[in-house]
This record gives sequence, C-alpha cells and structure tokens, in this order.
Amino acid sequence: MEEKKVVVIALGGNAILQPGQKGTFEEQMKNVETTCKQLTQMVLSGKYKIVITHGNGPQVGNILLQNETAKGVAAPMPLYVCGAESQGLIGYMIQQSLHNLLQDVGKGDIPVATVVTQVVVDKNDPAFQNPSKPVGPFYSEEEAKRLADEKGYHVKEDAGRGWRRVVPSPDPLEIFEKEAIRQLIAARSSVIASGGGGIPVVKKDGKLEGVDAVIDKDLAGERLAVDVEAKVFLILTDVDQVKLNYKTPQEKGISKMTVEEAKRYRDEGHFAKGSMEPKVRAAIRFIEAGGEKAIITSLGKAMDALEGKAGTTITR
Amino acid sequence: MEEKKVVVIALGGNAILQPGQKGTFEEQMKNVETTCKQLTQMVLSGKYKIVITHGNGPQVGNILLQNETAKGVAAPMPLYVCGAESQGLIGYMIQQSLHNLLQDVGKGDIPVATVVTQVVVDKNDPAFQNPSKPVGPFYSEEEAKRLADEKGYHVKEDAGRGWRRVVPSPDPLEIFEKEAIRQLIAARSSVIASGGGGIPVVKKDGKLEGVDAVIDKDLAGERLAVDVEAKVFLILTDVDQVKLNYKTPQEKGISKMTVEEAKRYRDEGHFAKGSMEPKVRAAIRFIEAGGEKAIITSLGKAMDALEGKAGTTITR
Repeated sequence: MEEKKVVVIALGGNAILQPGQKGTFEEQMKNVETTCKQLTQMVLSGKYKIVITHGNGPQVGNILLQNETAKGVAAPMPLYVCGAESQGLIGYMIQQSLHNLLQDVGKGDIPVATVVTQVVVDKNDPAFQNPSKPVGPFYSEEEAKRLADEKGYHVKEDAGRGWRRVVPSPDPLEIFEKEAIRQLIAARSSVIASGGGGIPVVKKDGKLEGVDAVIDKDLAGERLAVDVEAKVFLILTDVDQVKLNYKTPQEKGISKMTVEEAKRYRDEGHFAKGSMEPKVRAAIRFIEAGGEKAIITSLGKAMDALEGKAGTTITR
Repeated sequence: MEEKKVVVIALGGNAILQPGQKGTFEEQMKNVETTCKQLTQMVLSGKYKIVITHGNGPQVGNILLQNETAKGVAAPMPLYVCGAESQGLIGYMIQQSLHNLLQDVGKGDIPVATVVTQVVVDKNDPAFQNPSKPVGPFYSEEEAKRLADEKGYHVKEDAGRGWRRVVPSPDPLEIFEKEAIRQLIAARSSVIASGGGGIPVVKKDGKLEGVDAVIDKDLAGERLAVDVEAKVFLILTDVDQVKLNYKTPQEKGISKMTVEEAKRYRDEGHFAKGSMEPKVRAAIRFIEAGGEKAIITSLGKAMDALEGKAGTTITR
C-alpha cells in the first residue's frame, strides 16, 4: 500500500466567512460545510492525510470588538488571547463539520482534532519596529490617540475610513506544538492547527510569552508544512490560478512554475503585496525547505489541483 | 521500567480565577502558574502521565457578557460556541504555563497540547426538560422575559439578585475526541482536554450538533478518565478532604472510603448538592467503570494524595 501523503491546507478567509455576510454562527457553519465537502474528498481518496490551517481575521476582529465594547463589565483579553479564543471557535466548526461529512459516507471513525497552537516569532524581528497590520475596530482620531497614550497602541489612519490599531506581523519561526501535531498525523487523525497564523509567542530563556502581533496565515502554514514534514502545501484562495499581468488585458494563468520562475515573476511585480505575494513567498519557502510541491488554487479546484489538473503548482 | 500511570486531573475553579478577582489576563495567568507548579511535580516524578481538564465558569461568563454587550456590532455566538472559545483561552494559558515550568527544570521537550473537545450528551436526557444551571449575566425581570420571548431562553429569578438564563446540565456520555487524546497520551504528551465540561453536542444519525447546555466538569472529567483508560482520577477542589458532617461540630475528614461507603454517606446527606455531591458521584462512577482509584483533595495536597498520604481516596 502506498504511503499517504501529508498535505497541509491553508484555507482562505472565504472558507469561513464571505464578504458582505454578518458573521452569524449559522452563516459561518454553512460556509465551513461547503469547504469541508472538498476536504472530505481528499480524505476519502485514500491518498492524503490532511492538516488544516485557516485565517481568523473576521472572527478575531469580532472577538476584539466584543472585548472592547464590554470592557466596562468584563476584563478585556490581549489580542493574542483573543486569537487563542478564535482557534477554539473555528477549530470546533471545522472539526465538527468534517466529522459529520465523513460520517455521512460511513467514515465517521476517522479522528479529527484541533490543537491549540502557539507560533514562535523572534522578539528582534524588524516587524516589531514597524507595526503595520490593522486589527480590530475603527476609531475616531481622538479615541485612537487616547488609546495610543493609555495602552501604548500603535495607531494609523486607514485610507479615510477612520483610525485603527496596527500591530507587527513578524515572521513565523516554529510551530510550537509540532510534536503533538505530528503524533496525531502519525496516528491517522485529520488535524486542525495554527489557526489564524497561530498564537504569536516569543521565547525568553526558552520560556514562552504571548505578544500582540498577527502572523500571516500562509507563512505560518508553510512553517507548519515543514514542521510536520508534509509533501504538499496547498494554499486555497479566491482565484483558481496565480496570474501574470493580473487584471490587465495580458492576464495569463500560470499552471506550473519553478522557484526560480516564481522569484523572477515576483521581482517583475506580478504579485500584489499583501495578497498574492505572501502566498507565492510561502510557496517558494516551502520548496526551498525541501517540500515536494506547493499549490495555489481555489477551493473548488483543490482536488483537481492535487492531481496536477488545475491551479498553479510550484516545484523545485 | 514501570509503566507510567495515566492520571486525569479535574481542576477546580480556583485554579484559574480566585473569588473576588476581576478576571484580568494577568491575574488568571498567575493563578494558572501556581496550579501548574503542582502539576509539574507530577510530571517530574516520572510516575504519571497527566491529562488536565478544567472548569470555565467565570471565563465563559465573561465571553457571554461580551457577546451580549456587543450584540449591536458583532453577531453573538451561541453558548456552546462561547464554550469552544473558552477552551482556546484556558488551554493556551495552561499549555504555556506548564511548558514554561518544565522548561525551567530542563524538561521543556515534553510536549503539552490542548485538544478542542466535544462531549456527547443524550438529546433525550431529562435535563433538557428542566433547565436549571444559571449562565451569563443578570437581567431585570422585564429584560429576562423579553429574552425568553425572543430567543426561547429559559429564565429564572436567582435568590433576589436578579434574573438569569438557565440551561440544561445533561450527563456526559462520550468524550468525542477521545481517540486523538489517547494518541497524544500514548506518545507521551501532557494533554489538556474537555475544558469547561466540554462543548456539549447531541448525535443525530451519528452527526454532531452543538446544544446550549453546560456539562458538569467533574462528571465530564470522569468520562474522560474512563475514555482514556486512566488509572487515577484526581479531582482538585478547595478543601483537602471530603468531610462527614461538614461545617458542624462533628465535622470529620475521610481519608479512604469504598464505593459502598461513599454511597451510604451520600444517602445520609453528607455531601452538599451542586458542590461535593457531584464530585463524589463522579468518583463513584469512575471506580464502578473499572478505575483504580479516585481522589478528591486540594491543589496543595495533590502530590501527597497521589501517594496516599493526604486527601480522600475512593476505591472499590
């Protein structure tokens, strides 16, 4: 029997909440079910062991907003603790949904589990000198400056829409719970881990300490893929393929590219910062760290892309 | 080498938040550290593999309050989803603290992981006909009755302090993620699971669905102990021993009791409902399900109690 390949799947934001939705639990659960239908196919193919990671932007945004709104009646938690809460929330939805779909086809005995995951970042990462990732609610200028004074928040004006808190987005170095995640994979569980890019922690004399930061979920997914020795790293987003000359008349999908080609296209400016660029960067890193292939595609094309029939595949 | 014994430890509320505290993250983390110092000793003794479960009353209470207060700006999550969030929150605190203390003595390589845990209850459990467990904030009578109308909440007046929502407290039947938890224990991880009594779910044609309910954490801990085949079930509370004639001049600590004795004392009314009674009930169940010994004691006496030198030990 051929050994099953470990695939780490990074789910895009749309996998849990669609633009324009209010974020009720029912809406989110329905989206998660649509997503898990695709993931179920991968499990049922018998070829893959799946490890799922996911974004948490809207969810942690809501938790932050709840913390802030209720601060007069309940002690607000730090951002990284809100991140831990969102891992419980989203992990629960995915693990239940994936189980229910497997159960539907008589495979309910495959264990699915969510591991609360800390991700180590370097306390000297230059990102800490330049907080740039907006999180949480919009404020008036006055309120933003008060928060900056009182809590030491970094705040920035966000393109005419108001002021927001900005936090550092440091590079992920290590999935701290990698050993437990590996144990679960080895014992045939499907695992959900490193949600929202992980709970960011720094090491001080080997001891962990939470920090208010946001780790890019695709870069954290790459770390996860390396740390669990995955063969394939699959990044799901809202387009079927990476494009050259995106949104111009010369737009052209890329089916396959080598790391070298990917770097050239990147240097030529084909990939939008904060959007496709970090995904391509994560894919490049994965291959350079010894991974077999990285794939960037949409949820609907995921199975085909794993078979090399869709999406963009990046190899050495 | 003697095989390590699996011990399931149910932490009492004081382990995370002390009465009268505000519930800031710093306070909670400090309490968790004090607790984890005791747990670290168990790990370091080399005799035990530990599985930790814990209450979540104050934490899920705050999350509910945040959800309610912010309902105009962020879609509130159901109670059971708030429970999932609290597992992320508390699991993070315990796993980080336990690691840091192990790291302090050069044992930072022992993996510690939190598993988001669903606990199956019977949808026909009579508790669903008689919701009695108060959760969340206090309301005025008017507000309580409006919530009862609008959301179908059951509400009750709480001893002159105001009105509260009450939910069912059904019996735990199965720790749904038991397989994953067992895998982790087998691979020498310390595991945190079934926090807050677990996320209550019912099965419909084998599929899981969350329900608004609260499962007693000691009874869920007992299920966990059975499901992971623990030898010892250790319930930590705020007294060193179970007492006969508690808070009377005839008060007397119990060092050891058989299941039969425990049942007799219970029938004689020695154990307060909603307090010591469910703990003794959980201990009895554990032994009747084949467990070796159940122990009820305080955090400070936990190590001594494991050696038979303190606490109350219940055996066949």
